This record gives sequence, C-alpha cells and structure tokens, in this order.
Amino acid sequence: MAFLTQIQSARKGIMTPEMKKVAEVEFLEPEFIMKKVALGHIVIPANKNHKNLVPMGIGRALRTKVNANIGNSPTSSGIEEELEKLSQAIKYGSDTVMDLSTGERINEIREAMIENSPVPIGTVPIYHVLNQVEDPMDITEEMLIDVIRLQAEQGVDYITIHAGLLKKHIPYAKKRLMGIVSRGGSIMAKWMALHNKENPVYTAFDKILEICAEHDVTLSLGDGMRPGCLKDASDEAQFAELEVLGELVKRSREAGVQAMVEGPGHVPFDEIQMNMEKEIELCDDAPFYILGPVVTDCAPGYDHITSAIGATMGAFHGAAMLCYVTPKEHIGLPNARDVRDGVIAYKIAAHAADVALKRPHARDRDDAISKARVEFDWKQQFDLSMDPDKARAFRAEAIRESQDPSSAAKANDPQPESCDGMTNTDEHFCTMCGEKFCSMRISQEIGDVE
Amino acid sequence: MAFLTQIQSARKGIMTPEMKKVAEVEFLEPEFIMKKVALGHIVIPANKNHKNLVPMGIGRALRTKVNANIGNSPTSSGIEEELEKLSQAIKYGSDTVMDLSTGERINEIREAMIENSPVPIGTVPIYHVLNQVEDPMDITEEMLIDVIRLQAEQGVDYITIHAGLLKKHIPYAKKRLMGIVSRGGSIMAKWMALHNKENPVYTAFDKILEICAEHDVTLSLGDGMRPGCLKDASDEAQFAELEVLGELVKRSREAGVQAMVEGPGHVPFDEIQMNMEKEIELCDDAPFYILGPVVTDCAPGYDHITSAIGATMGAFHGAAMLCYVTPKEHIGLPNARDVRDGVIAYKIAAHAADVALKRPHARDRDDAISKARVEFDWKQQFDLSMDPDKARAFRAEAIRESQDPSSAAKANDPQPESCDGMTNTDEHFCTMCGEKFCSMRISQEIGDVE
Repeated sequence: MAFLTQIQSARKGIMTPEMKKVAEVEFLEPEFIMKKVALGHIVIPANKNHKNLVPMGIGRALRTKVNANIGNSPTSSGIEEELEKLSQAIKYGSDTVMDLSTGERINEIREAMIENSPVPIGTVPIYHVLNQVEDPMDITEEMLIDVIRLQAEQGVDYITIHAGLLKKHIPYAKKRLMGIVSRGGSIMAKWMALHNKENPVYTAFDKILEICAEHDVTLSLGDGMRPGCLKDASDEAQFAELEVLGELVKRSREAGVQAMVEGPGHVPFDEIQMNMEKEIELCDDAPFYILGPVVTDCAPGYDHITSAIGATMGAFHGAAMLCYVTPKEHIGLPNARDVRDGVIAYKIAAHAADVALKRPHARDRDDAISKARVEFDWKQQFDLSMDPDKARAFRAEAIRESQDPSSAAKANDPQPESCDGMTNTDEHFCTMCGEKFCSMRISQEIGDVE
Repeated sequence: MAFLTQIQSARKGIMTPEMKKVAEVEFLEPEFIMKKVALGHIVIPANKNHKNLVPMGIGRALRTKVNANIGNSPTSSGIEEELEKLSQAIKYGSDTVMDLSTGERINEIREAMIENSPVPIGTVPIYHVLNQVEDPMDITEEMLIDVIRLQAEQGVDYITIHAGLLKKHIPYAKKRLMGIVSRGGSIMAKWMALHNKENPVYTAFDKILEICAEHDVTLSLGDGMRPGCLKDASDEAQFAELEVLGELVKRSREAGVQAMVEGPGHVPFDEIQMNMEKEIELCDDAPFYILGPVVTDCAPGYDHITSAIGATMGAFHGAAMLCYVTPKEHIGLPNARDVRDGVIAYKIAAHAADVALKRPHARDRDDAISKARVEFDWKQQFDLSMDPDKARAFRAEAIRESQDPSSAAKANDPQPESCDGMTNTDEHFCTMCGEKFCSMRISQEIGDVE
C-alpha cells in the first residue's frame, strides 16, 4: 500500500499508532482524534523519517502546545550551543522545537536536532536557501523546492512557508508603522517587488504539497504580514494575508497534507479574542499557531511576560499552539537561560488556558501542589512545580537571607545558584510570614480550638 | 472649617488640590474626578499627615495602579533592606507601597517609609498588634484601635482591615482545600473561634471609621477569605465575605471615609471576569484592589508571571489597582531583586490593560518605542522601555555572546550585569537575525526597489 499521511489515513478510517498515542496522552477517545485529524482540525506533525519521534497532536480540542524557537544567527552560536538549547527546551516541557538557524553549519545543526529530539522539529526552509546565496534577491523557486525536499527527507516534521503574502498585499504594508517584521515575509516581499513577480512559494505551492504528502511534512502557513507593533495589529495587511492562508489550508487538505496557520505577533489585549475567532472562521478551524502575542511594545527584556499574557488569552479563545517569546526578543539571540525562561512562561500560559478550558485532568497538578502546600511538604511542592530547580534555589536563597539580611538588599543580585534547597524542609512555615504568623498553620488550628 | 476628607469635600462640591492633580496626570477633567470621588468610585489615599505625598487616584475610570508589598518578617530583613526595597519599588513605577512588616523595629520601619515615600503607604495594622503580643489570641479590640490611631497619626494613607470575615463564615472555610490563607484572616478566624465572639474589627467598625475620617485614612477592606488555590476560588466563603464588604463600603461612605475592596488571590482564568463584575455589583463600584490573581498554582518561582496574566485580565474587566506578586511568593520573603521583577511584571499587566481599555494616551509610549525600533534608535528604545537597565544589559550580553558563543551555552548563567549596553548602538540590526536578514531593514528597502 502506498504511504498515507495522517490526514489521508484518518479520512480512510485507518487508525494510526500516532492517533492512538495522541488519544492516550490527551485522555480522549481515539475515534475522536481520527475524526478531527480527518477534518484537519488536529494535526499530528510526524515526518516518516523522524525515527525517534514521540507523536503529539496540535488542535484546539487538545491540550495547548508550546513551541520553542532556537537556532543560530550569522553573528551567534554554534552546534553545541544549539543542542544545549534543544535540551533546555525539552527539559522544561516544550512540545515542539523550531530550528531557525540562519548562520554557519545550518544543515548539520538541523540533522543533529532531529536525531536528538523526541518532539517534532519545525524549520523555515527559506533560511537555508538564504544561506546559499550572497544576496537574498538571487533566490529561485528551484532553490526553495530543493531545500524543502532535502529537509523533508531529513525528517523535518513541519515547515513554515510564507505563501500567503501576495504581491498585491505589499502596498498595505507601506501604510504601517513597522512594515513587515517577519524575516521570511520581508524577503519574499522585496523579492516580488524587485522581480515584479508573484510570491514563488505561492506559485510553487502544488509542488510543495507533493513533497509534503510524500513524507507527511505538516505545513505551517506563515504570516509574513504579522504585526510588529500594537499600532499595526488587526490591519488590512494582516487579514488580507489570512484570507489567502484560508485558501491554502483548503488546498493542503485536498492534497492530503496537514496544515496549521501562524498568527500574530503584537496585538492589544482587547483584540486577541477577535483575532482567534477570525482565524477559526477564515481557515476552517486549522490549528492556530500564534507567536505571543505581546500585549505591549515597551518592555524589552520582559517579552516572555508581555507575550505570555497575550498567549494565555489567545489559547483561551482558540489558539492550539503557542510559539514562545524569550526575554531577549527585540534585543538579540536568546541563550540557554533565555530559552528556559521563555519555555516556562509559555508552559504557564498554556496550562492556565487548559485549566480555564477545563481540559481533562488539567487542574490535577494544581490541586496536588496545593495539597502539598497545605501539608508543608516542600519536597512534593518542588517536584510538582514547573521548574523544580528554580523553586529549590529560591527557597535556599530565602533561608540564606533570613540568616544574613544584608545579602538581600542588593537589587542586582544574580539569580540564586541552583542547589537542592532542601535545608529545613520539615519547617511548617516559610520566610515570607515566619513561623508565628503562618496563615496556613493558624488556619489548620481553628479546628482544634472549637 | 473642620477637616474634610476627599469624599466629604467632593460631596460638598469642593475641588481639592489632590483632585486637580489626579485630573492632570490622568488627562481627565477635574469635575469628573470630583464627581467620582463623591460617589466613592475613585479614592485618593492621602493622609493629611503624609507630608511629601504626591496625590494619586485609584478607580476603574483611571489608569490601572500597581502596589508593591514590602516589609520584613520575624525571620528576615532590617530597616536598610526595607528602604532599599521601597526605593526599588518606586524606581520601577509602583503607584503605592504597602509595609507588611511583622518583625523587628516595625514602628521605625513604617516611620522611615512614610518619610521617604512620595507614593501612598498602606499597612495592615493587625501586624503591629501581633508584634505586641506573645500569642495572637491575646489581641483585644482596644489594641487594634490604638494601633490604627497611632498609624493614622503617623501618616499611613490606607489600611487593610479584615472586617468582613464573620464568625458565621468560618464553617465555609473548612470545606476548602487550603482553608484561610490570609494572615490577618486566619488570625481573626482563630480568635473568633477561640473566644466565641464576633470579629472585633467588625464590631469596632464605627470607631475605626471615626479615626479614618479624622485623618483621611482610606480603608482597604481586606478579603480574609481570599482563595489560596484554584480549587477554592469563587466559593461561598469568598462571596459571603464579599457581600459583607459591600455593606462596609456603604457604611464607610456614609461616615465620610474612602474605601476600596481587596480581591483574590488564586482564580482560574475563565472566572476572573465574573469575579470583577461581582465586586462592582456587590460593592457599588468601590475600587477593586486585587492580588494577582495567579492563574495556576504550580509555578512557584514564577508567580510574578502566573499572576501578571490574571492581573491583566482583572484590570481589563474592572480592577482598579493590582497588588503585585513576586517570583518568591509561596516560597519566602522577597528581596530587592524580587521586588523589581514583581513591579515590572505588574507595570506590564497594568499598562496592557490600559492600552486595551484605550485610556487617554496609554498607547503613546508603545508607538514611540516602536518608532525607535524601526529607526534602529537603540538609545531611545532603552530610554522608553520599562526597565532600561535590563534592556541595556541584555543587549550587551547578546553582543558579548556573539563574539564568544560558548558563553551563551550555560543555562544557569546569572543575569547579565548592569552596563550601559551602548556598544554598537548605531548598528542597524540585532544579534537575533544578524545584519543580512534583518526584516526591518529589508522591509524598508522594498520602497527603494520599486
């Protein structure tokens, strides 16, 4: 029998091991997963050549997923650094990882990542093409197709292509404060303007679908027109492209290719719900994979926070996967610490939305850690927390400072060193209230006096 | 003429300098402020004895405010540490500061804070009373009144009292996973149970109102029953108390005392809107002063993030002031670094809500920093950011790591040291994309090729 992609299998009523696995970890029925994959409302990015992959699903019927972008830039980082970032991202719970390398050894880094990753790996193939040319304007359709084929064969699970940004959309971007802030989008737009031709990824879309179907590469339809600041959010540039993405979703599904859609960017908090609903409508409920969105432009150094706020709101209103933003967004390439901070902020956002949406068993962990808190079971509290190392280190720091208050006075103290934090773990209080005024202990004593 | 509080003045149509100042900084009409103060929908916490105060207003018609809690505990921190925290909180934009000290030199710390603070200072008087007794169960109504009078005379601008938690509410708390997590609330509840008497702050409420009216101390009606975990949110304990707080708001206004209401705590994201609406209804739009709320229990070490998410949603739906939560919540007493991280996270939340609610000029700063970003004006970007020191330090770190990639590989790197970050400020790219693939530069070049 010929190879079938997940969506092709689902349509034929063939239950794949991948669908079963997704059903199991999501506490849902396999038949439900199969039905949703057939409709394209759930994607399972699982390239047949990615051998050590643990299958996972993306869709708003499922637990909210988190992606971490890593990868080097021409000015920063080598293969060891990127594998360290991969390991940090997976350790802290990233559900997929995108390799956005644009610098040296791009092919090797990608191969090493796929080999070392149990989670789906995504890429932006145009970055590899850029690596092959002196001037981005020398890109050709053939180069793009060749790189997509190469990456499909290597085992890349999903690829971002900027096929929805058409020549006719360019004038919209000129009305903006920030123009086009997507790397792929800006290059495609300049290329179209220079050569006076339509977007080559759009014109070659059928060829790309063919390659994707052959290996079951999921398409992540990039938003080259994503707004780069609050002022540009929800404008005609963004929504004109989104309409095209809706058509491409349809064409992908018809070709047996799984597709998701990428979303903004920078969006004021009050416009997030509308943005989610619009995608669901225009793209027939293709999984929405959003970047943030950040809800204010003016907190560089804290964009993991500005965007975790927007991401929670987005997931609550229908986004299926959240692409993390690190504290170093708008400033420079994230290092391993930034990757960790970004992933944790997004695990919080995703989990908060899952709890709010009452997804199966989502709140179990909250109830368990709260029970441990009441019982002063510090070990259990640490073990159940999203970043046990950080929680332990903070408690150790607090205990140290309670013995030497002057060490607490310095605002620019480095983060506390990682340690086991297990000193005094049997104490029935913390340094916040101290023993005498511990509300939880006092609250528990109320029963004794009656 | 006898002394009049802000609300008494407003009712008589007397425009105070404080109301004018609030109108000016909020870009609103003085008459509007006066009307809202008269109704109690805006409070201006301004004790007549707080000499160096710069008046500010709290209410959902105004810019969202942020409060930072500082103060020592019996196990931690002295007067110098607390003044350093005060300075950090004000530097990063805290609109009010609460001194929650429970440890040594409690009276001196408070006096020093009031003397050094241009922003309103709040307290929880019961903490001082606790400081005077061996056993919290020995507290008397007289002690409470004496301390409230002392603090009113010292110039405290607002005080939290737990007057809404009544004896009949205690059984509700026993149905909870975490019981009573408010320090003041748990002590009051145990006291009532032990002595079989009604809440002394409730029975002495008229006497307290008299003292507050004499100095214009604003009441912050504490929620002793605030939920301490998601499971306990929005339960009968919480809302039974909220109803009493609504009655106390009415009594405060009748006595010429300004009043706000404190809110949760731990609340799932989907229940936040309902919680805000309920307060507005039950408490006749008294400014709602909320703590977070955190939207997941399982991220100790990151509770500034879990709660900034909830705080944004809360402010968007009507909260007037956000009490920050630091990364060290649930673990220990915050140090100066934690105070900074907490304040910035909350300035982000408050600002995001102000932008979303389209408050006058709220988005100006976002537009200005985005313009600076397009123009590669790094100095302006830093100057306009919420934490210029952090942004500069991150850029310096990114540049350093681009020259020595191995330094970027360590996940537990300390925070970058503060530095001027101004090396290479004229570069038209950042280390994230590098020069060749800078989307903003390429986007700007599109015009040139047409």
